[in-house]
Amino acid sequence: MTTQHRAPHDHAARRDRARAVLADRAATHLLVTDPVNVRYLTGFTGSNGQLLLAADAADDRLITDHRYDERAASSCPDLERILDRDPLGATLSAAPSASLLVEAEHLSWQQGRDLTARAEDVGVRVGDAKGVVEALRLCKDDAELARLAAACRITQETLAWLFDDVVVHDRSERELAITLERAFIDAGADGVAFPSIVASGPNAAIPHHEPTDRRLQPGDLLTIDCGAEVDGYHADHTRTVAIGHLDDELTAVHEVVRQAQAAGIAAVADGVTGGQVDAAARQVITDAGYGAAFLHGTGHGVGLRIHEGPSVGRGSAATLRDGMALTVEPGIYLPGRGGVRIEDTFVVTSPAPPRALTDTPRELQVL
Amino acid sequence: MTTQHRAPHDHAARRDRARAVLADRAATHLLVTDPVNVRYLTGFTGSNGQLLLAADAADDRLITDHRYDERAASSCPDLERILDRDPLGATLSAAPSASLLVEAEHLSWQQGRDLTARAEDVGVRVGDAKGVVEALRLCKDDAELARLAAACRITQETLAWLFDDVVVHDRSERELAITLERAFIDAGADGVAFPSIVASGPNAAIPHHEPTDRRLQPGDLLTIDCGAEVDGYHADHTRTVAIGHLDDELTAVHEVVRQAQAAGIAAVADGVTGGQVDAAARQVITDAGYGAAFLHGTGHGVGLRIHEGPSVGRGSAATLRDGMALTVEPGIYLPGRGGVRIEDTFVVTSPAPPRALTDTPRELQVL
Repeated sequence: MTTQHRAPHDHAARRDRARAVLADRAATHLLVTDPVNVRYLTGFTGSNGQLLLAADAADDRLITDHRYDERAASSCPDLERILDRDPLGATLSAAPSASLLVEAEHLSWQQGRDLTARAEDVGVRVGDAKGVVEALRLCKDDAELARLAAACRITQETLAWLFDDVVVHDRSERELAITLERAFIDAGADGVAFPSIVASGPNAAIPHHEPTDRRLQPGDLLTIDCGAEVDGYHADHTRTVAIGHLDDELTAVHEVVRQAQAAGIAAVADGVTGGQVDAAARQVITDAGYGAAFLHGTGHGVGLRIHEGPSVGRGSAATLRDGMALTVEPGIYLPGRGGVRIEDTFVVTSPAPPRALTDTPRELQVL
Repeated sequence: MTTQHRAPHDHAARRDRARAVLADRAATHLLVTDPVNVRYLTGFTGSNGQLLLAADAADDRLITDHRYDERAASSCPDLERILDRDPLGATLSAAPSASLLVEAEHLSWQQGRDLTARAEDVGVRVGDAKGVVEALRLCKDDAELARLAAACRITQETLAWLFDDVVVHDRSERELAITLERAFIDAGADGVAFPSIVASGPNAAIPHHEPTDRRLQPGDLLTIDCGAEVDGYHADHTRTVAIGHLDDELTAVHEVVRQAQAAGIAAVADGVTGGQVDAAARQVITDAGYGAAFLHGTGHGVGLRIHEGPSVGRGSAATLRDGMALTVEPGIYLPGRGGVRIEDTFVVTSPAPPRALTDTPRELQVL
């Protein structure tokens, strides 16, 4: 795998941090059901795995099934396994007379009601530990930052190659998306962080456009929003470039977005809210008269999920802290004509300016 | 896109079939929250979209947000849209004094409790419509079968190319996985149905092995489990081949699995249960003394999800019907030595034998 040379994750230390919720809430167990949270706390990556976290680390259990027994043994050798296709039943057996916390946003309504009924039968109390593991995931540790940086480096270098060395004129959006995604893999990525957005001409007015067979034409804006994934960590990076000569308004719009991003970046610091970062970027766009054409929030956290905390949208009260990773990506979208978005991934590193994990030049590039 | 030449989906007809649940349950609305069910009923593919199905088709609404407004307008022009970041609030506003059914397995426990509390405030009754859309999805219509067949054809042709024209000796599992997945895209796939399993030597004993840097060696078994995705429809296809000369037991094990699959295929017919198909395949493996080494169910339904109904596992009471698509994929796994799995995707077409959408030769191939 591509990650052998990187610092290993310290999953046991992360579990110990999560364990604090048990004392806080006078509970005996936490059942972690979200696959990304399970990966964060154990390293296990199969599609069926739950972590039953106990007050005593020696009682922690990974609940999976036979298909994943060998993978679990190799990826989390320090965890005892329970192989059972009924994880809720296994949990109630492993934690009798317990006070059990669950991730209410990561169990279905049906599972929650089922668990409640079965727990009552065996005298287990069930409580909600919403967002506990997500909160731990906000600030990235060194092992995580190394992977995020690797994903971002591959993304930036590949995008630079695409813009510099690939003839994009007369290529279709779909061809460019495929070319880019293959190059991520060639460069050592484990996959793509999300389906690439390649939006040209009027399609660039659609923030989440799916690549089509439309071919690039002179006068187009071209927005590419893409990212590599390395060992589960996601990069997120967008540039809008011009294909040949651009009309004056679109050129001016690009400059507005560039200044909006700069204002957003300048606002990022430990102690600031996501809403303040959003407001700083949004003000520039509103002042230029394009407020209604900025259709989304200024950014979002990024890590094991492409979208995670902290929220960097309008009115977000989430407080940024050193070590958090987030995007700053204002945009302006003009239906029928095109759009501009400029996006980079940063790590909060006060009092210094945020560390840019992607740093492609932000001035308008003409291909 | 690759699908322009294929028969279009008749989403309105599917919605009318789903609407029958409202009369059956004396309800006024059904809120469809599972993204795959939303795609099935509307064609919408964004990450945020819910369908509010009403008793009168003219009152059907797609609930999404600004980012997806243009995509929704082009992919489901026949549906009015509500743009709202709070779909539960939008639902309660659009359906006041209603009797609302929801997909309890596709809302989180937290969302379900939130909805119940807010519905009570406005006098809306909430009921559970578990599995209603999934039941409609079981039998595939012609538009779906065309896409499944296209995905399977690409998969089979690409796998044949890999086995026939690519030198696999001394290549790593990971290299082969990447080579295969790129070739899917070159052949017109929209993506891969799931991360390919390429498992060699002792790794072939792990049913859901992730490709590693292990290089293929003479005497290895090599299992490749892969599929292309076309317009949302998934292929699922596995072959185990020999790298050079194989020891006698592994050769014999391959033949047992081949006969088990033949028995499973022969059992597939309208009116038969998934459990009966599983039992037919399992009996051959048990009779050969390897019952404990068959670690999973014999198969599963396949369509817009790689795993969906009908269940074709041990004891499954799901009744097969003409038009259902399913895999038959018995396997034997010998820890430390290797394993064999043979898998094809079929459509139930009684009284004829099931139609094989993948049909790579099933005899042991030696590379």
